[in-house]
Amino acid sequence: MTGSPIPTLNQPDTARWAAIRQARQNLPRHLDALKDFCGIPSISADPIRRDDVRRAAGWLAGRLQAMGLRQVEVFPTRVHPMVFGELPAGQPDRPTVLIYGHYDVQPEGPVDRWKSAPFTPAVSGDFLFARGAADMKGPLYATLAAVEAVLSQGPPPVNLKFILEGEEEIGSPSLGPFLVEHASLLAADACLNLDAGLLDYDCPTITYGLRGILAVELRVHGPSQDVHSGIFGGVIQNPAEVLVRLISALRGPDGRVSLPGFYDRVCPLEAAERAELARLPVTEASLLAQTGSPELWGEPGFSPVERIGARPTMEVNGLVSGCSGESFATIIPATALARISFRLVPGQDPDEIYARLIQFLGPLVPRTVRLEPKLLAGSPAVLVNRASRATRALEQALETAWEKRTFYQRGGGGIPVVTQMRSILGLESVLTGLAGPADNCHGPNERLHLPTFERGVETVIHFLHPFAQRI
Amino acid sequence: MTGSPIPTLNQPDTARWAAIRQARQNLPRHLDALKDFCGIPSISADPIRRDDVRRAAGWLAGRLQAMGLRQVEVFPTRVHPMVFGELPAGQPDRPTVLIYGHYDVQPEGPVDRWKSAPFTPAVSGDFLFARGAADMKGPLYATLAAVEAVLSQGPPPVNLKFILEGEEEIGSPSLGPFLVEHASLLAADACLNLDAGLLDYDCPTITYGLRGILAVELRVHGPSQDVHSGIFGGVIQNPAEVLVRLISALRGPDGRVSLPGFYDRVCPLEAAERAELARLPVTEASLLAQTGSPELWGEPGFSPVERIGARPTMEVNGLVSGCSGESFATIIPATALARISFRLVPGQDPDEIYARLIQFLGPLVPRTVRLEPKLLAGSPAVLVNRASRATRALEQALETAWEKRTFYQRGGGGIPVVTQMRSILGLESVLTGLAGPADNCHGPNERLHLPTFERGVETVIHFLHPFAQRI
Repeated sequence: MTGSPIPTLNQPDTARWAAIRQARQNLPRHLDALKDFCGIPSISADPIRRDDVRRAAGWLAGRLQAMGLRQVEVFPTRVHPMVFGELPAGQPDRPTVLIYGHYDVQPEGPVDRWKSAPFTPAVSGDFLFARGAADMKGPLYATLAAVEAVLSQGPPPVNLKFILEGEEEIGSPSLGPFLVEHASLLAADACLNLDAGLLDYDCPTITYGLRGILAVELRVHGPSQDVHSGIFGGVIQNPAEVLVRLISALRGPDGRVSLPGFYDRVCPLEAAERAELARLPVTEASLLAQTGSPELWGEPGFSPVERIGARPTMEVNGLVSGCSGESFATIIPATALARISFRLVPGQDPDEIYARLIQFLGPLVPRTVRLEPKLLAGSPAVLVNRASRATRALEQALETAWEKRTFYQRGGGGIPVVTQMRSILGLESVLTGLAGPADNCHGPNERLHLPTFERGVETVIHFLHPFAQRI
Repeated sequence: MTGSPIPTLNQPDTARWAAIRQARQNLPRHLDALKDFCGIPSISADPIRRDDVRRAAGWLAGRLQAMGLRQVEVFPTRVHPMVFGELPAGQPDRPTVLIYGHYDVQPEGPVDRWKSAPFTPAVSGDFLFARGAADMKGPLYATLAAVEAVLSQGPPPVNLKFILEGEEEIGSPSLGPFLVEHASLLAADACLNLDAGLLDYDCPTITYGLRGILAVELRVHGPSQDVHSGIFGGVIQNPAEVLVRLISALRGPDGRVSLPGFYDRVCPLEAAERAELARLPVTEASLLAQTGSPELWGEPGFSPVERIGARPTMEVNGLVSGCSGESFATIIPATALARISFRLVPGQDPDEIYARLIQFLGPLVPRTVRLEPKLLAGSPAVLVNRASRATRALEQALETAWEKRTFYQRGGGGIPVVTQMRSILGLESVLTGLAGPADNCHGPNERLHLPTFERGVETVIHFLHPFAQRI
C-alpha cells in the first residue's frame, strides 16, 4: 500500500481520512472497473470507432450517476459527446471544483508492437497495460474513485463538477463551442486536470507551463496517379522528393527551426527559472533510457529540460507516399503527405506561425507539383499562475500523498483545454498527472503505474478537502 | 478488326495468313481466357499471394499443354515457379525462338483509386481493365494466341521455347540461377520479349535500349518506439526528419543527382542518336496528358525523350513513417523508411553506385539515429544490337501488322532479364510491347488496349515466319 499513513490521532478532518480508507479498501474493485473502461477502444480519430467513443461516454455517465452525482448529462456535439456531472457541496458558500478529463484515446498504432492487445487491459507487475491506461483513462478514473470515496462520507466539501470530453486526442474541436454555450453550467473556481505527466513515479509534479502546438498537413500533388518510374522518371517531378525538400528547408544546420521569424516572439527564460528547472530530476541518461535513442539532440545553448518545456521545436509526425507497405514498386507517387507539428512556447502565436509557414513554403514549391497545406490544430502555450489558491492546495495534496516536495515543471506537450478554459471561462487550471515519461503515452505498450494510480486517488481526496477549507 | 488485310492472292506463306485468320476468328475466346488469367492476383511481392502466383503458373502450363507444346514443365524456384514449354520445328535446321514473359504483377496499390476491382477484369470501350492486363499478362497471352494460331496450321516454322517467370516485378531473383542451371534447355537464336512498351497504340516500337536500376531501402532508426512529441520533442532526434535530409542531399539545386561520381561513367549520346530520338512522337503535351502533371521537369540540357531513355535519374518510390494512416498523432516516430531507386544508363554500374551511395550517406547520419540501408535490386542498362536478324524480322512483322514505319526507342524502364539472357546465355533479345504509356502499368486502373493486343498477336505470327525463312 502506498501513500501517507493514516493518522491515528483524531484529526479535525476525519472525513478526509475516512475517505482515504474507503478508497484503499475499494482498490481491487476500482482496478476491475478501470480495466472495463480501458477495454473500450474509444479512438476519437478513427471514424469506425465512433460508437466505441459513444460507449465510453455512456460508461462514464453511468459511473457518475452510480456515484450519486445529481445532474449527469451526455451532451452530443458535432463529433464526440461531452459528459457533464454536478453535485453541490454539503454547506453553502463552498468553492466549486471542475474536474476535467478526456475519455478518448490515441490510435493503437501497429498492433504487432504491443506485447498484449491494446484494448485487452492486462496487469503485469506494477503496471496496467492498455491504450489509454496512462493517457488518460487511469488518471480520469482516479478522480472518479476519489470523488466516490469523498461522497461515501456524506455531501462533498466543495461543489463538484465534471467535464469529460471525447475529443482531446483530435484537438478538441467541440470543446470551445461547448464552453461558450455552457459557460454558466461550467462556472467554477478552479479546474483540476490530471492530464499532465509526472516527472517520475516518485516525483509529485505540478505542471505550470504547457507548450502550444501548430499541427499541419502538407500534401504535395504530382501526377494524377502513381506512374511508372521507368517510363516517366526524368520528366515528371516526384512529389515525395519535393516534400522532403520542403521539410528539410524548415531546419537550419544549427538544429534550429529556420522558418523566418519563428523565434521572434519567444519569451526568454529568466535566470531564476532556469535555475529552478535545473533542479528537476531529468537527466540525459533518463531521457535516453525512456526512449532508447542512441544520443540526445536539440537546440544548442539550452538544457534538455529547457528544450522540452521552454523552447519551441518542430517534429515530423508522419510521412506517407507511394509504396509504403511491405512491397517495393517502381513508381513516381501521385501524392506525398507529411504531418508536421511545431511545439510552441509563451509568446508564439500559432496562427502567425502558420501564416509564416505558408508564406515560406510557397516560393519553394516548383510549378511541376502543387502543395496543399492544411491546418490540423493550433493552440498557444500557457503559463499557469503558481501563486493561486488551487495550485497551493494541489501542492499540499501531492506532498501529503507522496511525502515529498513538489516539483514544478514546464510540460513539453500541450493541453488545449487549459488555454480554452482560461480564455473562454476565465477559469484557471491546476495540472498534475499520473503518467510517467516511460509509460508510452501515444506509443505501443502504454501502461499505468498502479502504485502511482493509488497515490493519485489519494491526492484528489486531499485536494478537495484543503481546497474547501481555504475559501 | 485491325491489322493488315489478308492478301487474296496465293502467297508463298499461305500458312502464315491462315494462322492470322485463325487468330482473328478466335479473338472472343482469347479475350475470355485473358480475363481468366488477369483474374488471378499473382502479386509476386506479396507473400500472402504465393498460392495465387503458383496458380497463375499452373494456368499457363495448362495452356501450353493444350496448345500442343511437347515438354511443358513447371520448375519450382526459391520464390515463384518458372514455366517452360518447348516444341521442335516441323523441319530440321530451323532456328530457335525463345519467348519470354512474366506472369506476376505489381501490387494493386490503393484499391479505392481503381474504377473497377483490380482482379475482376472489366472491358470498357477498347480497353480491358485489370492489374497486369498491360504489364504483362496481355502481351504474354498474345504470344500464346499467336503460337496457337501458328500451330493450328501444323508444326511450327521455328523451334519454339517459352520461358515464363513469376518474379519479374520483384527483380527476378531466381532467374539468373535458373538460366545458369538450364542453359542448354533454353539455348536459342533469339529471345522475343513483349515486356517493353509502345510509344503509342499507332506507333510500332522496338526498344533497343533499356535503363538499368539500383533500388535501395533506407531505414532510419530513432527511439526504440514511437514517443510523444510533446514530452520528447526538442531532445530526441526525429528519424523522419533525418531521412528527408538524407534524400534531399541526393539532388543538387540544378536538378541533377548530386551523389559524387554518379555521372562519371555515363556514355554520352552521339549526335546521330539524338537526331533519331528527336523523331519519336513523344511531346511535352503527350507526357503531361499521360501523367496529369502540371509541368515537365528534369535534367537541364536534354530533351524529354533523352531524359527518359538515355539519362540516369533518381526517384523516391515510397515513404512511410509515424502516423501514416488517416489519423494524426503527435509522435516522434521510431523509424522512417524510404524506398528510392536510380535509373541507370549504359556505362553505370549498379554495385558501384550503391557503394558510392553508402559512402556518401554515412557521414550525413547523425549519431542520434541509425541508418539501415538495404540493396533491393541492381541491374545495369543494356543496348540491343539493332542490326541483328531477329531485330530486322521483328521490324518487318511490326510494319506488316501496323502498316507503319517502326520507331526505335530507348526505354526508360529496365528489364533485367534482357541483361541476364545476354550475360548468362549469350542470347540477344528483341523487344517490343503492347502497352502504351497511358496504360497505367504499376498504377491504378491499369489497362490493355484491345486493338493493340490484336495487332500484337498478328505481329508474333508474322515474326515467327519470316524469322524462320531468313536462316
